Amino acid sequence: MTNAISIFDTTLRDGTQGEGISLSADDKLKIAQKLDALGVHYIEGGNPGSNGKDIEFFQRVKSLNLRAKITAFGSTRRKNAQAERDASLLRIVESGVPAATLVGKTWDFHVHTALQTTLEENLAMIYDSIAFLKSRGIEAIFDAEHFFDGFKHNPDYALAALRKAQEAGADWLVLCDTNGGTLPGEIYDIVTRVCGELKTPIGIHTHNDCELAVANSLAAVQAGARQVQGTINGYGERCGNANLCSIIPTLQLKMNYSCISAEQLQQLTSTARYVSEIANVAMPVGQPYVGNAAFAHKGGIHVSAILKDSKTYEHIKPELVGNKQRILVSELAGQSNIISKAQELGLDITANNDKTKEIIDRIKDLEHQGYQFEGADASLELLLREAFAEVPVIFELESLKLLVEKSKDHMMSEAIVKITVGGESVYTVAEGNGPVNALDHALRKALVQFYPKINDIHLTDYKVRVIDEKDATAAKVRVLIQSTDFQNTWSTVGVSSNVIEASWEALVDSFRYALIGMEPVEVSTPVREQLGLVNH
Amino acid sequence: MTNAISIFDTTLRDGTQGEGISLSADDKLKIAQKLDALGVHYIEGGNPGSNGKDIEFFQRVKSLNLRAKITAFGSTRRKNAQAERDASLLRIVESGVPAATLVGKTWDFHVHTALQTTLEENLAMIYDSIAFLKSRGIEAIFDAEHFFDGFKHNPDYALAALRKAQEAGADWLVLCDTNGGTLPGEIYDIVTRVCGELKTPIGIHTHNDCELAVANSLAAVQAGARQVQGTINGYGERCGNANLCSIIPTLQLKMNYSCISAEQLQQLTSTARYVSEIANVAMPVGQPYVGNAAFAHKGGIHVSAILKDSKTYEHIKPELVGNKQRILVSELAGQSNIISKAQELGLDITANNDKTKEIIDRIKDLEHQGYQFEGADASLELLLREAFAEVPVIFELESLKLLVEKSKDHMMSEAIVKITVGGESVYTVAEGNGPVNALDHALRKALVQFYPKINDIHLTDYKVRVIDEKDATAAKVRVLIQSTDFQNTWSTVGVSSNVIEASWEALVDSFRYALIGMEPVEVSTPVREQLGLVNH
Repeated sequence: MTNAISIFDTTLRDGTQGEGISLSADDKLKIAQKLDALGVHYIEGGNPGSNGKDIEFFQRVKSLNLRAKITAFGSTRRKNAQAERDASLLRIVESGVPAATLVGKTWDFHVHTALQTTLEENLAMIYDSIAFLKSRGIEAIFDAEHFFDGFKHNPDYALAALRKAQEAGADWLVLCDTNGGTLPGEIYDIVTRVCGELKTPIGIHTHNDCELAVANSLAAVQAGARQVQGTINGYGERCGNANLCSIIPTLQLKMNYSCISAEQLQQLTSTARYVSEIANVAMPVGQPYVGNAAFAHKGGIHVSAILKDSKTYEHIKPELVGNKQRILVSELAGQSNIISKAQELGLDITANNDKTKEIIDRIKDLEHQGYQFEGADASLELLLREAFAEVPVIFELESLKLLVEKSKDHMMSEAIVKITVGGESVYTVAEGNGPVNALDHALRKALVQFYPKINDIHLTDYKVRVIDEKDATAAKVRVLIQSTDFQNTWSTVGVSSNVIEASWEALVDSFRYALIGMEPVEVSTPVREQLGLVNH
Repeated sequence: MTNAISIFDTTLRDGTQGEGISLSADDKLKIAQKLDALGVHYIEGGNPGSNGKDIEFFQRVKSLNLRAKITAFGSTRRKNAQAERDASLLRIVESGVPAATLVGKTWDFHVHTALQTTLEENLAMIYDSIAFLKSRGIEAIFDAEHFFDGFKHNPDYALAALRKAQEAGADWLVLCDTNGGTLPGEIYDIVTRVCGELKTPIGIHTHNDCELAVANSLAAVQAGARQVQGTINGYGERCGNANLCSIIPTLQLKMNYSCISAEQLQQLTSTARYVSEIANVAMPVGQPYVGNAAFAHKGGIHVSAILKDSKTYEHIKPELVGNKQRILVSELAGQSNIISKAQELGLDITANNDKTKEIIDRIKDLEHQGYQFEGADASLELLLREAFAEVPVIFELESLKLLVEKSKDHMMSEAIVKITVGGESVYTVAEGNGPVNALDHALRKALVQFYPKINDIHLTDYKVRVIDEKDATAAKVRVLIQSTDFQNTWSTVGVSSNVIEASWEALVDSFRYALIGMEPVEVSTPVREQLGLVNH
């Protein structure tokens, strides 16, 4: 038996059934290109029978000349009707795809309850629909809905449904755990039995309702399945579909199956992050293989071992999937985390050094106050570089005023910033959609003449955490800000019992970090006059 | 063999190794109470040898008289030293716990690379440390670090380490897949082998680096393990620990093992959400069993089948784990809750009533804006009572001004509130330890003459959550405030892109709720003069 596994991606179809996932035709085309570069074998684009967006996708995707097979999704024909006249099946043909997936019932309970027809008619629906696609020269993939639940209740009928699809010429029989309730051992036994009874290649399609979609897919492959259907990041209805980002590397790096090339596997992390960006769904930081924390180390003992040999606490080399190792700094960590971070920055720091002890004491003190640097790499870098006097002063704060006014029908936030930049005093005022937004605007306005790069910096995330909730409105808060200049992304932190001050601190750190190594530009006389600049 | 599985929760210890997870001693105590109510058998509180926060936890947790065994975590003694003099082991004894977990090496590679000692010395470290705990009357759980990696490389040594722990009197031998790289089939085979060779009860501790931590835990139980170590929501280093929220229901509802009672299982969803709130980590919407979308149905065909019989697309009844079905297209899920809440308040509300529809539309609209009433019972009650004109107006806002000033060495927050109470205009100003605190002070100052009860109200909790993080500093925030008058406790919510406005809303709701049914008192002339009150 071959060890080649065919990867069928349904991010663009089943993935969009997930709550909060909505993709335009443009989004789908972008993702399809990325999936093609990753090397998946099938890209299911959508359901041409259900909406116009998907029809547009199928039209436009042709000009991209992707290597992957683009497939359309549909159901078996309506009951008591003809496949040749079924509107959905005709739309699949019209969409011009080389392959299509048809979902059909294999659980007798569903035939009675959901379809409300006879067991015989359902078999005819399967046969006719597959035969129709094959007669039009389209590769036919049969998705056997609820196959495992069906097999457990009535194995003869579930197998009869598969045989009908096979007789009609189906190219793949894909066994679906539609409700996600089946366990790996059951999957293994049932797939083994099916592989023994049918000659058509078998596929697997699982859902994650028991957090077992990945394990179930792997069990099916071990039992003989040779196609895996899933989605990037496991998007899908309810708890999601099987996550291809976990299945592909495990099959390939740990089980000796072959899915995509080693070079393509190195694009896994960037693909996962790209899809999460387009879908506008934040990726869990600890997502296996591809998450930002998948190879991040926090515990001090772990870190000192990792520095001796990364195999001590890493199950694979992160580079194999395009990810990388990160050392987090936190109160749980010993000094080895901080030393390795400093060395990464090229700073002269070793374990037996007064400077090192001073820095570590400072970090511990800040963490005691509520700072957390593991989520604020840029603030940590500033702190380390400052200890070596490597960060020039970008500006000095003279004063900051924030005014929020609310009346019955009006709300206003205004920030007034007075700073000294390069020996000049700048005084700006700005409004915002809330106080922190106003501060952001006022500070940008003050700095942009001196540092035009400010225009490239965008804040992409803002988090507030109350540190000691017992103190209620007088409690300390920790603010985390994430920023990007489209090439890099960095995070900064601020802590205060005043949410405005904490936000200000994180904001200032973000700009300081972005401007490391930059000199203020000369401001022209007209601009000087407009700004009312005063030389000190 | 018994089918009872011992649940060992390490949310408070291994869970806090996760990126972005940081829990204060207060947080840990709150979570411990919730875990105890859920019925877990062991609660690992932390590492008394590593930091002061955990020592505080172990001291304070005693007075809670929890039913679960509180356990402390530590390592085997240092190399070439005595267990009786090992500072970490002594701290465990001092913490007064009835049980402790000691992690020790079982992978020869780690003994050489990380510990840098001999294989013999490592065995002695295990023996001495376990024997020491037992001599002090403490139940000893041996966490065999990297056991599966160790077994695959050198099974004899890995087993020898377990035998040493057994000889020293360990009560449990817990096999750890520390790096999370082992596959379910390997776990099953190795646990089967270990159960055949050792007589001490076996436990399993897995990590999710291949998205297999749940499957691996289940495989170990099937092979004979009788303790499962994991965390709520799968928090933990890198990709997290085994998720108890998926393991417990699967063991219990699908595999005929017994972990907690059926009533306790119904608290699973609320426990998961509570821990996520305290840890301030948003729960993935599609988290198996307990996520908000775990039983949410979006696809039209699915929904019509679900309405015929929920078994068609649900693997279990959501109520078994305390979750509920949601139909995303019609969003009618909350209606019965709202009706039952209103009836509880004695309001005339039934399902077929225009008023009911109006209220539900209003709540849906607010939820769409980002409000969440699950955690804000008082705001929901005000909203329901308002619909029946049952809440008298306590005051009307004329205007509100907030001023925050920061200079080089000074920080000031000042709030100015102008309101109308009982036909009189009141104008107050107050400072605070941050802007929200200043608002709180100014509003109290304005109301207290009319409602002396204000003096009894204290704010006990203040939470800020960014709703749509993508909008960075212009994002909407949800503020939750918890208040008490020492007899009752209530929670209120506010939403705005302006953190000040959201806080104000929640603050006002808190006072309005506390003052329901009260009339303003007559203010005496001297006080009137002092306040500068003006009749309208």
